[in-house]
Amino acid sequence: MTIDVDAMTAYRRDQSALTAAGYPAALVRARNTDDVVATLKYAHAHKIPLVTRGAGTGLAGAANAIDGAIVLSMERMNRILDVDAGRRIARVQPGVINADLAAAAAEHGLWYVPDPGSREISTIGGNIATNAGGACCAKYGVTADHVAALTAVLADGRIIHTGAVTRKNAAGLNLTQLIVGSEGALAVIVEATLRLRRSSADPATVVASFPSVGQAISAVLGIRDATEPCVAELMDQTTIAAVNAMTQMGLDATAGALLLVQYDDRTSEAQASACAGLCSQHGATEVYHTSDPIEGEQFMQARRVAFTALEKQGSALLDDLAVPVPALPEMLSAIESIAAKHDLTIGTFGHAADGNLHPTIIFNAGDADETGRARDAFDAMVNACLDLGGSITGEHGVGVLKHRYLQRMIGPIECELSAKVKAAFDPHGILNPGRSL
Amino acid sequence: MTIDVDAMTAYRRDQSALTAAGYPAALVRARNTDDVVATLKYAHAHKIPLVTRGAGTGLAGAANAIDGAIVLSMERMNRILDVDAGRRIARVQPGVINADLAAAAAEHGLWYVPDPGSREISTIGGNIATNAGGACCAKYGVTADHVAALTAVLADGRIIHTGAVTRKNAAGLNLTQLIVGSEGALAVIVEATLRLRRSSADPATVVASFPSVGQAISAVLGIRDATEPCVAELMDQTTIAAVNAMTQMGLDATAGALLLVQYDDRTSEAQASACAGLCSQHGATEVYHTSDPIEGEQFMQARRVAFTALEKQGSALLDDLAVPVPALPEMLSAIESIAAKHDLTIGTFGHAADGNLHPTIIFNAGDADETGRARDAFDAMVNACLDLGGSITGEHGVGVLKHRYLQRMIGPIECELSAKVKAAFDPHGILNPGRSL
Ligand SMILES: Cc1cc2nc3c(=O)[nH]c(=O)nc-3n(C[C@H](O)[C@H](O)[C@H](O)COP(=O)(O)OP(=O)(O)OC[C@H]3O[C@@H](n4cnc5c(N)ncnc54)[C@H](O)[C@@H]3O)c2cc1C
Ligand SMILES: Cc1cc2nc3c(=O)[nH]c(=O)nc-3n(C[C@H](O)[C@H](O)[C@H](O)COP(=O)(O)OP(=O)(O)OC[C@H]3O[C@@H](n4cnc5c(N)ncnc54)[C@H](O)[C@@H]3O)c2cc1C
Repeated sequence: MTIDVDAMTAYRRDQSALTAAGYPAALVRARNTDDVVATLKYAHAHKIPLVTRGAGTGLAGAANAIDGAIVLSMERMNRILDVDAGRRIARVQPGVINADLAAAAAEHGLWYVPDPGSREISTIGGNIATNAGGACCAKYGVTADHVAALTAVLADGRIIHTGAVTRKNAAGLNLTQLIVGSEGALAVIVEATLRLRRSSADPATVVASFPSVGQAISAVLGIRDATEPCVAELMDQTTIAAVNAMTQMGLDATAGALLLVQYDDRTSEAQASACAGLCSQHGATEVYHTSDPIEGEQFMQARRVAFTALEKQGSALLDDLAVPVPALPEMLSAIESIAAKHDLTIGTFGHAADGNLHPTIIFNAGDADETGRARDAFDAMVNACLDLGGSITGEHGVGVLKHRYLQRMIGPIECELSAKVKAAFDPHGILNPGRSL
Repeated sequence: MTIDVDAMTAYRRDQSALTAAGYPAALVRARNTDDVVATLKYAHAHKIPLVTRGAGTGLAGAANAIDGAIVLSMERMNRILDVDAGRRIARVQPGVINADLAAAAAEHGLWYVPDPGSREISTIGGNIATNAGGACCAKYGVTADHVAALTAVLADGRIIHTGAVTRKNAAGLNLTQLIVGSEGALAVIVEATLRLRRSSADPATVVASFPSVGQAISAVLGIRDATEPCVAELMDQTTIAAVNAMTQMGLDATAGALLLVQYDDRTSEAQASACAGLCSQHGATEVYHTSDPIEGEQFMQARRVAFTALEKQGSALLDDLAVPVPALPEMLSAIESIAAKHDLTIGTFGHAADGNLHPTIIFNAGDADETGRARDAFDAMVNACLDLGGSITGEHGVGVLKHRYLQRMIGPIECELSAKVKAAFDPHGILNPGRSL
C-alpha cells in the first residue's frame, strides 16, 4: 500500500465555492459492489466517517472530504449493464456519466431525460443522490421521476434492493425515493434502474432578447399559460456577457435578458410561433425562431456553459433557489437589490419554466471584505427565497453549503424525524455526517 | 357519549373481499386537525392501535378495523382550502372526494390528473395513502407524482410539514414520498398540496374489438411504440359481458377483448388514426373512432364500472398486478391457465399501457370449496406475477390482502429496514399495525 497525498487531494472537494473540506484518511476507488461492501463494513466497524463521491461536480460541498474520513469514489463502477428497449429501462452502475447513458439510450431510439448542465461530466449516482435537475424538468420532471429501482449498500455493508421495474408499484414504503436526493447520507448506490422514454420530436427553438429580466419573466408566465415548452431558460445580461467572452456564440450583448424556449412534440412549430408572438408582445426586441435541431442545441450549449463562463470572471458563488413560478419577478428584484446593497455583481440564469434560479455572485476570493459581502449576499438571497415560500435548493442539494438553512426550511420536528430515519439506515452515523440533513 | 354499534359496523371494512376485519373499540370522526392530534395523543399514550380511514373504498383491507382499535375517519375534513391557478396547486383537507377536487380545478382551467375508477367516491387522503393510480398513469404518472407537500400528524400527535410548493425541491430527505403510499402506517395526513396541470385537449377515443386478449395486447405494444396515448384500457370478454349486464352501454358482446385508447394532445386526431390502423393490423374485428369527448367519456365510464359490474356476478376477489408491459402476454396466459386449473371464472381488465392488470375472480362465497379455490388461484396469480419480475400491487396497496407476499416482493433486509423507518414515525407501532409493511 502506498500513500499518495496528491492523489487524495484531487478527491477533497467538489466544485462548490466557499465550502469547508477536510483531509481524508483514505481514498477507495471501488471497482465493484464487493469493494463497496468491504469498505462500508470496515468504516462501520471502526466508526469512521465515509464520504461517497461520484464525479465531484456537485455545487453544495456534499462530496467534500471530512477530516479522517474515507472517500469512496464510484467513478470506476461505470458500466451500462443493460438497455432494455421493450421495458424502456436501463440498468447502470453509479459511475456511468449521464451523457453516456443518454447516448446508449438514443441508440435504441430511447431517451434518458434528466439533463443537468453537467451531463458530460457528472455521474448517474451523483445525479440520483442529489436529485439533479436540468432543462427539461418543467415538462418531464427531475431525476427522481426517472428512477425505478436501486441497489444500495447500507452503512453496515448489507445490500438492499428497492423499487420495481414496473411502471407502477405500490408495495411497501418508498425506499427508492427516500434514497434519491439523500446526498450519500443513507446508503451507497451501487446500481440503478432508470426509466427511458420514447425519443421526442426534434425541438423547435425560440430565442428572444428582452430589455430587462422582468420582461423576460412576464413573457415566461404568458408562454406557460398558452403552450407547453420542454425548456424555458433565462440568462441575464451579466451571464450573456460572460458566455460571449468565453465562446464564439455571439449572443445579443445589448439584451437585458435572453430567453431560450424549446418545444419537442408534434406541434412544436405552432407552439414556437405562438411563443415568438408572446415574446414580442412582452417587449422582446429580437426574436429568433429555428426548427434546426443543431442550431437549437448550440443555443442550449451556450446556456449550459453559463456557470463555467461566470467562473472565468472571478470566484463564483452559485446559488440554487426555487420559487413558485409566479414569484419569479419578486425573487429577481430581491436579487437585484441584494447585489446593489452589497456592491456585488450577480449573474443570474436558470430554469424559468419551473421557478429555479441560479443567481451567481462573482467576487474576488483574495479580498476578505468582498468575500464577506459575497457570503452576506448569499445569505440574503436564501432568506428572500424562503420569505417567498421557496425552497433553499431546487436541484443542487444541501450539502455543506446550505446546512445552516435546512432547519428553517424543513422545521425542527422534521429534522429530528429525518435524523431518526437516517439512523435506521446508518445507526453509527458514518455516512456523510454533519451535512445534507 | 353514546355507543352506537351499528354506526361502528359501517366503518369496519373497506371494499375488499376475503380480508379479515376486527371490531373497533371506538370511532372518531375528526372535524379538524386538533381532533386528529387529540386522538393520536390518546392512542399513543395508551398504546391503542389506530386505523385511519378515508372513504373505505380500498381494495386491500388497509382500512379494515383491528380488534380494540380506534378507527379515525377523515371523511368530515373535506374542505378544498385553496386552488391557486398561478402556482398551479391546490391545498385540500384529506377527506375531499377526488372528483370534487377535479371539478374545482377545472373551474380554473386546470386539471387534477389522478383519476382512479373510484374518483367519485374515494378521498384524496386515501388516494395519497395508497398511491392510487388510474387510467392516465402511463402518460401522467400516479398520485405520488402530483403531491407537492403534506401536513401530517405523527403517532405521538406532533404535526409535521413535508415538501414544498415549488416544482423542484432538493432539501432534505423526501418525507413526502415516504408518506405517500404508506397506507396509514406512518402518519395521518391532515392536509395535502397537490399539483395541477393545464387542462389538456379534448380527447380523441378509439375503441377496438379483438377476437382475443392476446391480439389486443399485441396491438397495445404496437400503439405504445408509435404513439403516446393518455389512456389504453383493456377489458376481456367476461368483463364486457358483466358491464353489458349492468349498463345500457351495449359493448361488442362477441369480442374476446376490448381496447379503449385515448389521446389528449393537439395531435390527437392523427394519433388516433394511427392507433385505429394498428388495431386493424393486429386483428381487430371492429374499430370505432370518435372525437366527441362526451362519447369518449361514456366509454371511459363503461370501463370504470368494470369492477362494480363484476361484483354483481358473485363475490369478486380482485387482484392488482403490475408487470413490465412486454410481459403482459405471459401474465395474461398465466391468468388463463390458472382460471382453467382452478375451474373459476376470472374477468380481467386493467391499465394495459402501464402493465397493470386487475384479474378478478368471481366465486360463490357461500361455497367453501369454491372460496378455497379462489384463494388458491389468487395466490397462483400473485406468484406468477412475481416470477415475471412484476409487483404484487400496482395501485391498490398491500393492506391485509397482500401482506403475506410482501417479504418475497421486497426482501427481508428491506422489510426490517422499513420497520425501523416506521419506528421513527411511530415508536409504539400503533398506526395500522400488522399490515401494509
Ligand atoms: C458546469 C456544471 C453544471 C451543472 N449543472 C447542473 C444542473 O443543471 N442541474 C443540477 O442539478 N446540477 C448541476 N450541476 C451540479 C452537479 O453536476 C450535480 O449535483 C451532479 O448530480 C453531481 O454528480 P457527481 O457525480 O459529480 O456527484 P458528486 O459531486 O461527486 O456527489 C454529489 C453527492 O452525491 C453523493 N453520491 C455520489 N455518488 C453516490 C453514490 N453512488 N451513492 C450514494 N451517494 C452518492 C455524494 O456523496 C454527494 O453527496 C452542475 C455542475 C457543474 C460543475
Ligand atoms: C369501484 C372502485 C374502483 C376503484 N378504482 C381504482 C383505481 O382505478 N385505481 C386505484 O388505485 N384504486 C382504485 N380503487 C381502490 C380505492 O378506491 C383506492 O385505493 C382509494 O385510494 C382509497 O381511498 P379511500 O378514501 O377509500 O381510502 P380508504 O379505503 O378508507 O383507506 C385506504 C388506505 O389509506 C389510509 N388512509 C386514508 N386516509 C388517510 C389519511 N388521511 N392519512 C393517512 N392514511 C389514510 C387508510 O389507513 C388505508 O390504509 C377502486 C375502488 C373501487 C371500489
